[in-house]
Amino acid sequence: MGKNLTKRSEDYSRWYNELVIKADLAENSGVRGCMVIKPYGYAIWEKMQAELDRMFKETGHQNAYFPLFIPKSYLSREADHVEGFAKECAVVTHYRLKNAEDGSGVVVDPEAKLEEELIVRPTSETIIWDTYRKWIQSYRDLPVLVNQWANVVRWEMRTRLFLRTAEFLWQEGHTAHATKEEAIAEAEQMMEIYADFAENFMGVPVIKGVKSESERFAGAVETYCIEALMQDGKALQAGTSHFLGQNFAKAFDVKFAGKDGQQEYVWATSWGVSTRLMGALIMTHSDDNGLVLPPKLAPIQVVIVPIYKGEDQLEAISAHVEPLVKTLRSKGVSVKYDNRDTHKPGWKFNEYELKGVPVRLAIGPRDLENGTYEVARRDTLEKESVKGEDVVDRITFLLNEIQDNIYRKALNYREAHITKVDSFETFKDLLESKGGFLSAHWDGTSETEEAIKEQTKATIRCIPLDAGEEEGRCIYSGKPSKRRVLFAKAY
Amino acid sequence: MGKNLTKRSEDYSRWYNELVIKADLAENSGVRGCMVIKPYGYAIWEKMQAELDRMFKETGHQNAYFPLFIPKSYLSREADHVEGFAKECAVVTHYRLKNAEDGSGVVVDPEAKLEEELIVRPTSETIIWDTYRKWIQSYRDLPVLVNQWANVVRWEMRTRLFLRTAEFLWQEGHTAHATKEEAIAEAEQMMEIYADFAENFMGVPVIKGVKSESERFAGAVETYCIEALMQDGKALQAGTSHFLGQNFAKAFDVKFAGKDGQQEYVWATSWGVSTRLMGALIMTHSDDNGLVLPPKLAPIQVVIVPIYKGEDQLEAISAHVEPLVKTLRSKGVSVKYDNRDTHKPGWKFNEYELKGVPVRLAIGPRDLENGTYEVARRDTLEKESVKGEDVVDRITFLLNEIQDNIYRKALNYREAHITKVDSFETFKDLLESKGGFLSAHWDGTSETEEAIKEQTKATIRCIPLDAGEEEGRCIYSGKPSKRRVLFAKAY
Repeated sequence: MGKNLTKRSEDYSRWYNELVIKADLAENSGVRGCMVIKPYGYAIWEKMQAELDRMFKETGHQNAYFPLFIPKSYLSREADHVEGFAKECAVVTHYRLKNAEDGSGVVVDPEAKLEEELIVRPTSETIIWDTYRKWIQSYRDLPVLVNQWANVVRWEMRTRLFLRTAEFLWQEGHTAHATKEEAIAEAEQMMEIYADFAENFMGVPVIKGVKSESERFAGAVETYCIEALMQDGKALQAGTSHFLGQNFAKAFDVKFAGKDGQQEYVWATSWGVSTRLMGALIMTHSDDNGLVLPPKLAPIQVVIVPIYKGEDQLEAISAHVEPLVKTLRSKGVSVKYDNRDTHKPGWKFNEYELKGVPVRLAIGPRDLENGTYEVARRDTLEKESVKGEDVVDRITFLLNEIQDNIYRKALNYREAHITKVDSFETFKDLLESKGGFLSAHWDGTSETEEAIKEQTKATIRCIPLDAGEEEGRCIYSGKPSKRRVLFAKAY
Repeated sequence: MGKNLTKRSEDYSRWYNELVIKADLAENSGVRGCMVIKPYGYAIWEKMQAELDRMFKETGHQNAYFPLFIPKSYLSREADHVEGFAKECAVVTHYRLKNAEDGSGVVVDPEAKLEEELIVRPTSETIIWDTYRKWIQSYRDLPVLVNQWANVVRWEMRTRLFLRTAEFLWQEGHTAHATKEEAIAEAEQMMEIYADFAENFMGVPVIKGVKSESERFAGAVETYCIEALMQDGKALQAGTSHFLGQNFAKAFDVKFAGKDGQQEYVWATSWGVSTRLMGALIMTHSDDNGLVLPPKLAPIQVVIVPIYKGEDQLEAISAHVEPLVKTLRSKGVSVKYDNRDTHKPGWKFNEYELKGVPVRLAIGPRDLENGTYEVARRDTLEKESVKGEDVVDRITFLLNEIQDNIYRKALNYREAHITKVDSFETFKDLLESKGGFLSAHWDGTSETEEAIKEQTKATIRCIPLDAGEEEGRCIYSGKPSKRRVLFAKAY
């Protein structure tokens, strides 16, 4: 197809890296581990943001904005939290540069040293709970349901575009509640919203569950998560929602007076999804020809390519296409009519396949004569000739059909890659030969989890919420277990 | 009115600070100079963003995202640019913390020192032009029309909520063009868009002009600006758009092959508005009773307050109000029906006045009987009784009328505060007694500008674009001058 894209079967990881670059989604910057999100990639992220933001607001959340910087001492207040984030913090120590004496440029001005170092936020629980102390006095001030769209920094040593970058974009919800039950219900609600978004907008099937203790967020009592499966059999954590108990309220002394006048610590949640979702989106659906985008998140849903020789033919085609473009736009379909004369139709076909545009229309002189369009769908690459009077309906149908089809395809793949395993030998074999989620009994200890991880690189992705109780024995230790958990190698 | 708000006539600066806090717009955080934008303030900013983003996209711009960090050496590449920003940079020097040996918390790990320090972006020209080198090879790659919504950091020593904060939110457009003319046209277009937004959405009249050399953006050839006038007679720069010439293209070696195959440096613009606009919005319209918001940017356009005794009355009122709420929402009006029983009507009236909700409806048992509403408009505080069947039309009318009225009022104030001055004595007198813009002749030198600034604190806000030529003599030096410029004390 002339795309020069490595095949997934040859080298999945290389295919991914090439695709992100070639489809103009993102690229590495001059700053180690930090990416540039290019306009086409950012347009997809904006569509994700818009849907998520709508869902958050419909469930009563409001947006706000908190400082980028966190005083170093704030981090230390919650013991698990600092343990989890101290090792990957960007630290601001000075607030001024000055000219180097040798004229070689600018150097840090040693006289402009901060009294207390500032951490570039890796997540905002500490600065936000320091603020909530001022906002919350009484039960009347609760719940506080706040979300923030922001950039965060975690100094990762090995980075990959979208999947793991030193700086990434995300949203982080931080809520405060009067009761434990209400906070747990909030954390569960947000996990459900993430699952709804992943499945019904991204077309990515996910498993809902809770994390084991060692995989929990630093400072959480319970971490709910949604886990997706990529085409190479590796799992990807697509979103997390944490029940934080009273940990941060205690660390930052946030109490409220109940109806009975009694002072009590506030209950908390936090929840987030990030530009990592872009990685999940790309890896779930795309193929050896390039991106495959779900119509609901595609910046361009329909592209129309004219095939012509000379100005006259182009004009005739353009005049014919114009009302169609208008009709589609009035129905909320985003359409691009690509009449550039700098590129040939074949080049354009390639380009829009690479960029995952769900539906492509082509129209040449013969189509014009016959009153037809050539309609191609990106997911299956099937083409058909459609009469002009039917084309709007056909496009509407196809956009729904593609959305459903890529979800079904991903779901079938996922279902075919959840395997019940009852021995460690089979576990190891399957992990190498097939990958996917391995549903296995586990004795519930961090030691066993760690040993399995060391020997196989597989981790417990989650304890699925819909897993019933089942008597069994841990595949590693042989000790009794009451339910299966899902293991996988993960991004 | 029970708002405990300092009067503007008593202390304008204190009035502003109190209003920002009491109207729940923003507050100071635990981090020096960094603010927390609270949900109500952020909701206004989101409305601003949505309108601006639409305007940018309608003129062909796309959003993208570039790294938060800028390698120190990048800043030095453009001489004026580094001069302008080096003195107020947050500098990241380390990437890890470790536990203090005395157990007192975490300290910076000296072994995790960065090879090259990173600057938290004060503006992104350098990192973006380092990226554009990869994006631009030929005239076919031009123009590049990109915008970014982001946070930036400038280490200001004296900060004020929204007006001057160490971290602020903004958008920064960065465009690349094949010709000088096209880049200048772009810079001018963006100034026009900012003026359109300020006047027609914020209701803030602005003067369009260019900056004198000493007030120009560090690295620009020409800085276009929009200047607004606050109620205390001080000017506020509300937005700037820069023609950057080939300065950044040369600094980062960004060339393109023209149609003739010749290599040429690319022409650039950058332009931005920030959360500072919130300060302009607040100070232009608000009064001693609190915020006055333009309906087009008000998060709540209409609030309905029931006045009742007991559940039965509330139920009857709620049933009566419900269809009105639905009708208004279907017309795109954002309505809040505040039926909370935790607060009295008088408290609510106060609260929504303080928060600048443009139209307030009240309905009690007698209104219910008569089929009327009490309708109050925030800008003039006038009240009237309106029949139920007329209330939707009246609200629609009032929302337009208030939008127009507050603009007219601000424009009248501004027009009354532009004074032609022909002597330095009068200049100094007027600056103290009346403030506002002083239209005066200036000899065009930085020395005179600096001297006037030192003696009066007034700066040249802009050289208005619509100022015709006029022979005169500089008010300070007496040297010949060909046009008047606008001086003012400024935020």
